[in-house]
Amino acid sequence: MRPIPALALTFSLVALPALAQDARQIERMIEGRHGLMTLMAYELGKLGGMAKEETPYDAEVAGDAASNLSALASVLSPELFPKGSAVGEAEDSEALPAIWEKPDDFAQKISDMEEAAAKMQAAAGTDLASLQGAMRDLGAGCGSCHETYRQKD
Amino acid sequence: MRPIPALALTFSLVALPALAQDARQIERMIEGRHGLMTLMAYELGKLGGMAKEETPYDAEVAGDAASNLSALASVLSPELFPKGSAVGEAEDSEALPAIWEKPDDFAQKISDMEEAAAKMQAAAGTDLASLQGAMRDLGAGCGSCHETYRQKD
Repeated sequence: MRPIPALALTFSLVALPALAQDARQIERMIEGRHGLMTLMAYELGKLGGMAKEETPYDAEVAGDAASNLSALASVLSPELFPKGSAVGEAEDSEALPAIWEKPDDFAQKISDMEEAAAKMQAAAGTDLASLQGAMRDLGAGCGSCHETYRQKD
Repeated sequence: MRPIPALALTFSLVALPALAQDARQIERMIEGRHGLMTLMAYELGKLGGMAKEETPYDAEVAGDAASNLSALASVLSPELFPKGSAVGEAEDSEALPAIWEKPDDFAQKISDMEEAAAKMQAAAGTDLASLQGAMRDLGAGCGSCHETYRQKD
């Protein structure tokens, strides 16, 4: 084993645990936000199928899907996007650097989407026309954020 | 290329898309439930730190963490555990076969945990003693389900 300079040893003992903690935290936040997005897409799929009249309208299924969607949306926040978790910086990330360049706009878009999801929660179980109306705002909310802040496939 | 028996060809054309859909769905549900669990653990970590008095009690932080926890818990359901998503059947799964052997008990334990999370939501922002009281039930809820239905590390 090569002798390790005293300064490097100090650095590795003091700084590495913090760096490892940061890396673990970034990994957890990416896993968390992906889980939320995947489940939001799943619930949106149910609502979208009904909105497009590809599946029959079912008030109970629609209401449950919209409740889940709204709960998931309420958890989404800039906290899940820590610095160092952009595409190219962290594994599996599709988050564009614009998130950290325009934090207020990013937070506003999340907030708009949460509002659209809450409106969907009120509308989905009412009738098909209400669901279809709420779907337009919600779809626009998803799209406007992904357009600016998510890497295109 | 070897000739393919007619029956096998029919099977592959008809059945594979459905199987691929099932596999994709299982993958999404596992990603979704892991994301929920990871974020629940993250919010629980904040509440647990305060409950153990390792971090100072902060009513706003505690209230926000408990709101997120309760929203996440409300989305957790047996629907996220489709057949074929047990440990050994699907990648990354720690879900024990007992989930599908005792579906009513599994659903009940999820429901108990959701109730404990809702109580935490009411308690966390009140004061430290309320948070500590709610933490015991919530911890017991997590533990009793993991004990029976999650593979040990």
